[in-house]
Amino acid sequence: MAEALRVGIAGLGTVGASVARVLAHKTAELTRQCGRPIEVAAVSARSRGKDRQVDLSAAAWFDDPVALAEQAEIDVFVELIGGDEGPALASVKAALARGRHVVTANKALLSRHGVALAEMAEQKGVLLNYEAAVAGGIPVIKTMREALAGNSVTRVFGILNGTCNYILTRMEAEGISFDDCLKDAQRLGYAEADPTFDIEGHDTAHKLSILTALAFGTRISAGDIYMEGISNISQADIRAAAELGYRIKLLGVAQRTESGIEQRVHPTMVPTASVIAQVHGVTNAVAIETDILGELLLSGPGAGGNATASAVVGDIADIAKSRPGFQHGPVFGWPAKQLKPYKRALMRSHAGGYFIRLTVLDRTGVFAAIAKRMADNDISLESIVQHSAGADGQKTVILVTHETTEAAVRKATDGITKDGHLTDKPQVIRIERAG
Amino acid sequence: MAEALRVGIAGLGTVGASVARVLAHKTAELTRQCGRPIEVAAVSARSRGKDRQVDLSAAAWFDDPVALAEQAEIDVFVELIGGDEGPALASVKAALARGRHVVTANKALLSRHGVALAEMAEQKGVLLNYEAAVAGGIPVIKTMREALAGNSVTRVFGILNGTCNYILTRMEAEGISFDDCLKDAQRLGYAEADPTFDIEGHDTAHKLSILTALAFGTRISAGDIYMEGISNISQADIRAAAELGYRIKLLGVAQRTESGIEQRVHPTMVPTASVIAQVHGVTNAVAIETDILGELLLSGPGAGGNATASAVVGDIADIAKSRPGFQHGPVFGWPAKQLKPYKRALMRSHAGGYFIRLTVLDRTGVFAAIAKRMADNDISLESIVQHSAGADGQKTVILVTHETTEAAVRKATDGITKDGHLTDKPQVIRIERAG
Repeated sequence: MAEALRVGIAGLGTVGASVARVLAHKTAELTRQCGRPIEVAAVSARSRGKDRQVDLSAAAWFDDPVALAEQAEIDVFVELIGGDEGPALASVKAALARGRHVVTANKALLSRHGVALAEMAEQKGVLLNYEAAVAGGIPVIKTMREALAGNSVTRVFGILNGTCNYILTRMEAEGISFDDCLKDAQRLGYAEADPTFDIEGHDTAHKLSILTALAFGTRISAGDIYMEGISNISQADIRAAAELGYRIKLLGVAQRTESGIEQRVHPTMVPTASVIAQVHGVTNAVAIETDILGELLLSGPGAGGNATASAVVGDIADIAKSRPGFQHGPVFGWPAKQLKPYKRALMRSHAGGYFIRLTVLDRTGVFAAIAKRMADNDISLESIVQHSAGADGQKTVILVTHETTEAAVRKATDGITKDGHLTDKPQVIRIERAG
Repeated sequence: MAEALRVGIAGLGTVGASVARVLAHKTAELTRQCGRPIEVAAVSARSRGKDRQVDLSAAAWFDDPVALAEQAEIDVFVELIGGDEGPALASVKAALARGRHVVTANKALLSRHGVALAEMAEQKGVLLNYEAAVAGGIPVIKTMREALAGNSVTRVFGILNGTCNYILTRMEAEGISFDDCLKDAQRLGYAEADPTFDIEGHDTAHKLSILTALAFGTRISAGDIYMEGISNISQADIRAAAELGYRIKLLGVAQRTESGIEQRVHPTMVPTASVIAQVHGVTNAVAIETDILGELLLSGPGAGGNATASAVVGDIADIAKSRPGFQHGPVFGWPAKQLKPYKRALMRSHAGGYFIRLTVLDRTGVFAAIAKRMADNDISLESIVQHSAGADGQKTVILVTHETTEAAVRKATDGITKDGHLTDKPQVIRIERAG
């Protein structure tokens, strides 16, 4: 039996405590799978006394995670502190500088500093594993980094934020408003007190930026992601989508196009009969399209202590199976120094189908004016639904376009707005092909 | 740059030729990912002259795959011959005996000899990779063997045969009979001239037996799998399923129960709103349920030259990233010598919901008699659908039970048959919970 792999865990919140418990309770299984034991040799957290339902008395205690990374007798540093600077960044850097393997679940950190950290890891010949940083327990990093070797990715997209998917799922199932749903999600602990980061798409964008680097060998560029959140999705949209055979999901999409790489996060219409449309509640899903394999879809728990711990333990186990002298694959599939600058495709050149919901005054000539604006911009329509006027004299017109461009749709809706028939802002939702 | 990994490919059919093409066309990508080139050093096939759209002139040619395995200057032997004995078995054994890594897509071989081959590989300290053997390009082996380290599997199930799923999908979409569908599938090349192996569930059983070993650490035992094919699924079943909110899929299911491990292959009702119900055509899907992560689902292309080649190349790339002295994880997650004898749960003790379709004479007292047989066997009913009698004086009664046992259902349907009201064999289809 080889020597134990010594692990130092920085951060003993929900995920950290769950990792410690799995390592303690599954010792025999992990030893059998890895060919050597995994032991928690050091830990660091804000509060020492808290009951974490696991005996950590054999582990060295560090008040400061950076001190743990610098001094503890460990082979692997597990960063579960969170945040894209401060102690998380400092401790990961310290561990890598010391030639220790690193496992992290920190998407914000990788989204901002991933390339620099990957360069450090590759230069030191150690592993930087981060399965838990994207889509929780779903093994999307391993799949893209290892299983799809030899494949060239054409598009990767997914439901990457459980809070948004939970809200959209309940809005559809129960017919309640976004605001009521959000309040309930906060009450149940599925949404933060300040939900902006989730519902406006920032969290999805962080995760997408990592998938984009893996897919296309580009330097991470989260700041360049086009982003729309779900806060302006209404029951009217959800009902109209259902009527037309679609369901609304917040997707992150990265796609290679002729003009560069598209990275976008926005509410999206996906066909109701597609696999991804059945991904409900806090579940996440990622679809990967490649030249050789075709489309692969992975779905599963995207958040929560146990799901995240499962991915972290998988990462640690991979390190336990490796040995000194083992040549690791690069952190982002491409050697970090070879990652190319990200060439951004302009959102206005995005090509696809569009759902357009217009609230108009119920008067003669309105529909003709709308149709003319569409025709003038070379937009051909797949379907048109018109709901009869309510008591307020307003009518809803819903258009689904064939493939067109973002620029054309914007020009058309600007024109319609200028025509003066609308009583509300036009609602535009992109449609995504999905298997 | 480290030395090239030298690969020998035995079998240059659809898959083998595709593997050779991917290795030839993706040299730069693979070298970048693996840190060294992968080169095809030797090949073997039945016909030397055939045009495979790839230049193999630099590779040593062997007429005999066993000679290739024994003599070629290779690091990895890739077996793509097929069959569970003869040259496939002999050449894999020869390669392992010589201390060469092996990659195979051969489910039949592993289902029959997997444990013995794994013992050889582990004793020699080489890798035996077989991602392509189950669910084609879906990385289910990597996920179970690596990503889910520390998780204990409770159930694994999936759509593992593209031919059956293609037939069931078309039967539902087009309302055509099983026989007509099968003929069309044969014409289009989705089904073999002798389709028995696919449609009666043997192919699914082979794949399931491998997943069972990975899931539960048991010795492979394909012969013990309970098996029912799809040839007796009728339009009446498909329509009744749809009416009740279900879709029929041929599933392979392996599940830990109190009385042992269930391994079964049979047509199954899955909720129409579940993810797996949207897996259409030749696509495969595997769901894995574990104690820590919960349910993970993977879907993608399950067959075809490219999808299979993608998995084979992924396996080869993993070997290219490894180095001499690297301690590999065991072939089936558990060291082969520690794989436990498979303890079979009896099918009669299977617990679950059931769909029962009865064709009965339209006369008084029939329904009461059926209801009594159900009650006598403690079977409680979730729903009952009765279709009015056709011109032939026959009526259809469809029952959906709450959880009960196979034994109870068999006793009840035997009783109903004995009562003499049926004009056709009772149709019984198991229902599977699915997320």
